[in-house]
Amino acid sequence: MNTKTQALVINPVQLKEHWQGHRSLTRRVIEAFPEKQLFHFTLGEMRPFGQMVEELIAIAGPGVKGLATGEWAKLDENLQLGEDKEKLLEVWDQTTEEIERWFPQIDPEKFEEKVIAFDQYEDKAYCTLFYFIDNEIHHRGQGYVYLRALGIVPPNFWER
Amino acid sequence: MNTKTQALVINPVQLKEHWQGHRSLTRRVIEAFPEKQLFHFTLGEMRPFGQMVEELIAIAGPGVKGLATGEWAKLDENLQLGEDKEKLLEVWDQTTEEIERWFPQIDPEKFEEKVIAFDQYEDKAYCTLFYFIDNEIHHRGQGYVYLRALGIVPPNFWER
Repeated sequence: MNTKTQALVINPVQLKEHWQGHRSLTRRVIEAFPEKQLFHFTLGEMRPFGQMVEELIAIAGPGVKGLATGEWAKLDENLQLGEDKEKLLEVWDQTTEEIERWFPQIDPEKFEEKVIAFDQYEDKAYCTLFYFIDNEIHHRGQGYVYLRALGIVPPNFWER
Repeated sequence: MNTKTQALVINPVQLKEHWQGHRSLTRRVIEAFPEKQLFHFTLGEMRPFGQMVEELIAIAGPGVKGLATGEWAKLDENLQLGEDKEKLLEVWDQTTEEIERWFPQIDPEKFEEKVIAFDQYEDKAYCTLFYFIDNEIHHRGQGYVYLRALGIVPPNFWER
């Protein structure tokens, strides 16, 4: 059966909204960290949450633009934002706008096609897109543990 | 525009495979825990990872069956499996089979319809299904921190 004619689980607009809902929650998790802990607190020799967030930012905007345009650069997680929580949130919000701008421009025919994201990661476009979202949920879950270990109550997972 | 006629991002078979790929990774995270730590190690007054896994099991099989049949019972996370890693993995694998059995029986027309999952959580069926998957990724990310804090290298996130 041609997958294009099969039943729909979720359409592109719904997936964008689903992701932006997750991103709204991640933003509140960033906000919940005191600035110093955001960039310095770690457990198990992992990265501070602020560094994970830089990874998420490096992926999301350029990733969606890449899926829409076919133009990719190497992934660059070193955003050089300094240890500045307000600046991080500002760039987070710019990414929100980039997703709003580029996501609707992804050709729906493209989701089933292979892409080489960031000139490096080959997969079908829909898998690449789900990777972006799943990776955010994964790291945000780690941020929840950091917050709990700091004695801070994180926002509810189910509120988007 | 009728969402049913819009472009497809992912079809039901692909979403099932995507989830089972995640579940295969979660299984390896369970396996990576020594039995004692699986049921007792915690950080920040959170639950041990074994308890989170019981929640995931309580949701997944009955959740997919509920979406397929419309039959729901209240969510019951108390599986009474004891602190037995092998037993937990065995029930995990039974859930894998339940998903294989029931997921293809979800009427594709249903994804856009409201459901009251576990007689309690009202949302569109596709949102409910994504919640099951996202919740697993969220808690598994927490399991990664527990493993790292225990000095254990978790399986790679990108290997499914």
